[in-house]
Amino acid sequence: MALVVQKYGGSSVADAEGVKRVARRIAETKRAGHDVVVVVSAMGDTTDELIDLAQQVTPMPPARELDMLLTSGERISMAVLAMAINNLGLEARSFTGSQAGVITDSAHGKARIIDVTPGRIRTALDEDAIAIVAGFQGVSQDTKDITTLGRGGSDTTAVALAAALKADVCEIYTDVDGVYTADPRIVPTARKIDRITSEEMLEMAANGAKILMLRCVEYARNYDLPIHVRSSFSHHEGTWVTDGPVPAHLTSNPQSSQEGTVEQPIIAGVAHDRSEAKITVVGVPDTPGTAAQIFEAVAEAEINIDMIVQNVSVAASGRTDVSFTLPKAEGQTAVAALDRVKAAIGFERLEYDDQIGKVSLIGVGMRSHPGVSAKFFKALGERKINMEMISTSEIRISVVTRADELDDAVRAVHSAFELDGEAEATVYGGTGR
Amino acid sequence: MALVVQKYGGSSVADAEGVKRVARRIAETKRAGHDVVVVVSAMGDTTDELIDLAQQVTPMPPARELDMLLTSGERISMAVLAMAINNLGLEARSFTGSQAGVITDSAHGKARIIDVTPGRIRTALDEDAIAIVAGFQGVSQDTKDITTLGRGGSDTTAVALAAALKADVCEIYTDVDGVYTADPRIVPTARKIDRITSEEMLEMAANGAKILMLRCVEYARNYDLPIHVRSSFSHHEGTWVTDGPVPAHLTSNPQSSQEGTVEQPIIAGVAHDRSEAKITVVGVPDTPGTAAQIFEAVAEAEINIDMIVQNVSVAASGRTDVSFTLPKAEGQTAVAALDRVKAAIGFERLEYDDQIGKVSLIGVGMRSHPGVSAKFFKALGERKINMEMISTSEIRISVVTRADELDDAVRAVHSAFELDGEAEATVYGGTGR
Repeated sequence: MALVVQKYGGSSVADAEGVKRVARRIAETKRAGHDVVVVVSAMGDTTDELIDLAQQVTPMPPARELDMLLTSGERISMAVLAMAINNLGLEARSFTGSQAGVITDSAHGKARIIDVTPGRIRTALDEDAIAIVAGFQGVSQDTKDITTLGRGGSDTTAVALAAALKADVCEIYTDVDGVYTADPRIVPTARKIDRITSEEMLEMAANGAKILMLRCVEYARNYDLPIHVRSSFSHHEGTWVTDGPVPAHLTSNPQSSQEGTVEQPIIAGVAHDRSEAKITVVGVPDTPGTAAQIFEAVAEAEINIDMIVQNVSVAASGRTDVSFTLPKAEGQTAVAALDRVKAAIGFERLEYDDQIGKVSLIGVGMRSHPGVSAKFFKALGERKINMEMISTSEIRISVVTRADELDDAVRAVHSAFELDGEAEATVYGGTGR
Repeated sequence: MALVVQKYGGSSVADAEGVKRVARRIAETKRAGHDVVVVVSAMGDTTDELIDLAQQVTPMPPARELDMLLTSGERISMAVLAMAINNLGLEARSFTGSQAGVITDSAHGKARIIDVTPGRIRTALDEDAIAIVAGFQGVSQDTKDITTLGRGGSDTTAVALAAALKADVCEIYTDVDGVYTADPRIVPTARKIDRITSEEMLEMAANGAKILMLRCVEYARNYDLPIHVRSSFSHHEGTWVTDGPVPAHLTSNPQSSQEGTVEQPIIAGVAHDRSEAKITVVGVPDTPGTAAQIFEAVAEAEINIDMIVQNVSVAASGRTDVSFTLPKAEGQTAVAALDRVKAAIGFERLEYDDQIGKVSLIGVGMRSHPGVSAKFFKALGERKINMEMISTSEIRISVVTRADELDDAVRAVHSAFELDGEAEATVYGGTGR
């Protein structure tokens, strides 16, 4: 018998039929002998509808009240889900984030979990009940106000609760079968990944893979918690995100339960990101400390930058160009922040470009396999795709391209590393980096 | 400066426009220099929609989960209302029943308030904020589960909170101008009552007047709290329910602020009720203790009975008939409970009649004025309306009629006691009981 935490997103519980389907699924898990804790998001478009309602009364809803409003969405879904499970003859009890002991800071709309004290959940499990918990929400430690965790918050709730309860697995149910080697909408031959390390999953998430949020993977990694990403619409085994063995009693795939197969695949997958823009600071005096001034100005505006490239200085002019990428949503803030220090730094002008895309290749096997970068660059070169910026980590290579060349770049890289699916698609060994 | 608790029902906040209108009204009160606490119901049909959703997943939703579901309705309305007030430049903070300190027993769906500990509301007021509180809900003392107070629960929340905060008034906003001498849909000439004693209002509520729930009036009476029933759609002075003086700084009608005008009106108004049925137990052995057995059986089924009539025993047979009225909704339960004790008690049969109506005349002045009953009965007699059951208290006369004669009965009584409106409609002195 295991302790299983399951998280169902809004699309899985979009209507009463969806709720009943999910309830049957939860009942199956319980009847298989497991303790079950369920984290659920708001039904379908509820959150958008609530935001729309707020905007009908004010253009600037106070963050505290917006959190109070939005958290009613999960309150509805969790109560209805508990009812549907009770209707199947099993006891289910719903709990708000506050009741479940999800303690956060006071940053409304983007609160961070400080602690999880799931005493009431534990009691429910001890009494053989299924616990249903509202995702995405908590209660602030200082003010006791209701908070929300921001985007992907329900996944974080599930992982944090699973960690606090020392669960055997956190199952994240979604509308696809798992994590793919690339977005199947761009690469129709993309293959479902059976197993991926947390390090690789972190890089995938950080570089545009939307299936799991970065903070949720970080949390699971810190607590050594296996995540199983799978579909609520099928019973297929999904993708295990874990650095240890897959719990044998929770998998139908005996191979995946063995710790460390002979050789790890070099490449996990290809991620892409269209959400970034590029700012180029043109004509920066090439003197020590100048680049630091630029990034201090950006950091003070609380903007997270991603890639940075500094061109080689043109000796005659004593000036250079500095480019960096950042979320498009923060582009205008960054431009304004830099404009304010233009005179002090003495650069010539700013160029803002939001027509970029980023393709990333990720895999822990790169560490020990030379030649991966060369193969990556060659794949793009053969398609005549220009690489505008390059950034690498030990287990990742990322390249910025024109936005309209991004899909082609993803397909080129996916194909070059033989990730395209068929029976034996998993890449063991290989040509190296 | 006064402390004013205002309660707005679902029809006042049915949509964003309604919410904004109510927000302006609250802002006016705050800007007039008062401290303001607002209790709000769910928007428009939200509660019905949530019940409908529950019924889509189960025919028998568990009471705990139904409460969890339904309380999301007030969570939405209170947050949106707080936003709308903030948009007018005043600070408003919303609080759930639990946050507002509304402590109840654990009877889900019909919880009773045990205590109110409004520490957070007091703090909000001290910080010059308007407090918005979810009506209809609380948290159970024992289980810490979310509860609902049942029908009319938001009024009770408002009155209980006003009592705990020692507010100067509890204003109940509704879609009519106040309490009328009779239902204006039946008696178009019915007159708005400027002021009514809590005792009279209790009898009005207990006998079918729907504008205020019985328990809310009881609560206010116990705490000597003035209630002001008024319309959220106009600025007219409404009806004051109070045994003491009307607070002079909260009324635009100086006459009503004087304690005890020269003479109280004899009659407050005419109430009617179509929600009851009549059960007649036919052929009951006329021996001591038999009637007690009948009502014990009904009481064990937790049914509240209203009027009781026992016919004079027919000497020859040694048997009598016992009739009583009760809520129609509990009729079948009562019939079943009595059927089970039929043999033990030895009565002949049961008759169930749900085609009855009840008309009641209420006024504290009856106490000291003989002749009121005679005039009441004469008014019905002149219209050839048969009186099936009669019940009286010190300040009330009630008569059961055929359901289809009820409207006529209400008009006859209203007219006989000269309650019909015009400038000088208030009845001082009079013909006596």
